[in-house]
Amino acid sequence: MDAAAKSGLPFDDIRNLVKQMPEADQTAMDAARDRQGQLTKPPGSLGQLEEIAIWMAGWQGDAVPQVKRPLCAVFAGNHGVVAQGVSAFPAEVTAQMVANFSAGGAAVNQLCSAFDVGLKVFELALEMPTEDITQGPALSEAECAATMAYGMEAIAGGCDLLCIGEMGIGNTTIAAAIAFGLYGGAAEDWVGPGTGVDAEGLKRKAEVLRAAIGLNEGQLGDPLEVLRRLGGREIAAMAGAILAARMERVPVLIDGFVATSAAAVLHAMDPGTLDHCWAAHKSAEPAHVRMLEKIGKAPLLDLGMRLGEGSGAALAVAIIKGALATHGGMATFAEAGVSDKD
Amino acid sequence: MDAAAKSGLPFDDIRNLVKQMPEADQTAMDAARDRQGQLTKPPGSLGQLEEIAIWMAGWQGDAVPQVKRPLCAVFAGNHGVVAQGVSAFPAEVTAQMVANFSAGGAAVNQLCSAFDVGLKVFELALEMPTEDITQGPALSEAECAATMAYGMEAIAGGCDLLCIGEMGIGNTTIAAAIAFGLYGGAAEDWVGPGTGVDAEGLKRKAEVLRAAIGLNEGQLGDPLEVLRRLGGREIAAMAGAILAARMERVPVLIDGFVATSAAAVLHAMDPGTLDHCWAAHKSAEPAHVRMLEKIGKAPLLDLGMRLGEGSGAALAVAIIKGALATHGGMATFAEAGVSDKD
Repeated sequence: MDAAAKSGLPFDDIRNLVKQMPEADQTAMDAARDRQGQLTKPPGSLGQLEEIAIWMAGWQGDAVPQVKRPLCAVFAGNHGVVAQGVSAFPAEVTAQMVANFSAGGAAVNQLCSAFDVGLKVFELALEMPTEDITQGPALSEAECAATMAYGMEAIAGGCDLLCIGEMGIGNTTIAAAIAFGLYGGAAEDWVGPGTGVDAEGLKRKAEVLRAAIGLNEGQLGDPLEVLRRLGGREIAAMAGAILAARMERVPVLIDGFVATSAAAVLHAMDPGTLDHCWAAHKSAEPAHVRMLEKIGKAPLLDLGMRLGEGSGAALAVAIIKGALATHGGMATFAEAGVSDKD
Repeated sequence: MDAAAKSGLPFDDIRNLVKQMPEADQTAMDAARDRQGQLTKPPGSLGQLEEIAIWMAGWQGDAVPQVKRPLCAVFAGNHGVVAQGVSAFPAEVTAQMVANFSAGGAAVNQLCSAFDVGLKVFELALEMPTEDITQGPALSEAECAATMAYGMEAIAGGCDLLCIGEMGIGNTTIAAAIAFGLYGGAAEDWVGPGTGVDAEGLKRKAEVLRAAIGLNEGQLGDPLEVLRRLGGREIAAMAGAILAARMERVPVLIDGFVATSAAAVLHAMDPGTLDHCWAAHKSAEPAHVRMLEKIGKAPLLDLGMRLGEGSGAALAVAIIKGALATHGGMATFAEAGVSDKD
């Protein structure tokens, strides 16, 4: 840890928040579990839909939780590391896709619209890419902490379920670097095709990871240092949004590989930070499943998606809604006059 | 094959239908595939959502398919085999659950309501259980063919996506018997806990399968004979509904273990019969995955559900809707002014 990080500010504000996290409401969870046992179905036969309902009950503090104002927050950032040729698309696509989000033309727009999910896009200084991580730390501590604080604004307007997504050309390399920084292993374990690089591109991504880790040797013991040195603005903002949701006990759906890297930073600070989070889906980006194992999360969906922009999380809102519809709307054995198990 | 089956009627009507099945519209599929390549996302990055859109295009004969009138058809039947102690619930629960469907209290009601899916329940002579399959054929050829014809009524009111589900105490034993009859192996490969039988119950289910197969030795070469001898009314009706949907080129979501056994009968007649079908989910009933492998279908969802009544299929409608929302609503690279891949 360097001098700035030791001085007490501003990463210490983040550390203090993590120490004050509220927990799930066990009474509401017990009541929800009890309700599940009385509904007209064999016990456990709705599988994860039952677990989702109980989990939502805990975070909403209500035995019969509801999703009326789900929100998808998409954070967009640019990365100096694209200079290393790590993406199949040019950097200007980040801003073009933000414009596409505004115009309603992207995948996440359609999915939010299909499942009545609000959409907010946070543009993070796109004209000012972070430092190339093979050359120096991506962000200063002050920039990183300020971006996390900005990410906390995601829930300022209120929501009862938060989807976390991102857009940023080059950011599968950034997410892989964070995973490599947190978990080690081989660089090749963490890189993947992203938007579609070829074998040469994959090799470049692995080399970038090794260079970045080499540059920061001895500086990566603190997860927040991993975030600022190897990360990016949208990653820092997503970490902030996840933490802010926790403080308000808003359950979170984490989207894909890149969003999970933000969650992984919090998990490395304290595994309990992600108790209010569910992994929306298993991305086709090969290292995603490895990262999910590290943070102890099983994905809801596995549809070979690898787009990011919150698309997997917005789709998973449908599963949450289905879970809560059954939990809240089904008759009990007594109400329906159905004979219980022999 | 016995004399009745050889006489030319009525199973031959079913066989003739299978010979006249329409195929998917390749032109519409090509146009849908082309559209996918132009949408503002890396190629293939929406994974199965892209495949679903192209598949739906083929069956609806429209490059931009839509789901406006999805329908869930739930078929309920009773089974003489419950006398063998194969279920954790008493037989009267079938009728009680049908009443629960009518009153809107079951899981499938909530899921249909959540995703705007119509629901029709077909009650199949509940007061007249089929013959206990350890004692004789479940149905005569005439009864079986008539029940298949009745199942064809499912789509009579029109629909653009059909979910196939069922309710019938004892019918996981029936589905297992059909699989054992079609595929052989060990009886233990095909039985599972169903609504929740214990180890003793599982043993009884396997014994029932062996007895039923023994009784029909040499008579199971024809899949329709497997259906009438080892099946049940809701299974026959589901097979009819799947076939009727195919004749009208309506795509089908097959629910869980029991619904899949109906599909398996058609598949054994001709593997092409299921080209218009997608497996909605992987049931927690252990043999379901084995049956899905036999019919060559990969499930959309894997949420540990094992309720039946069309619940997995109704939930999967959300995924189909998400797929079509992205396919139909996203901007192309040209429309959005987004730079394509380098």
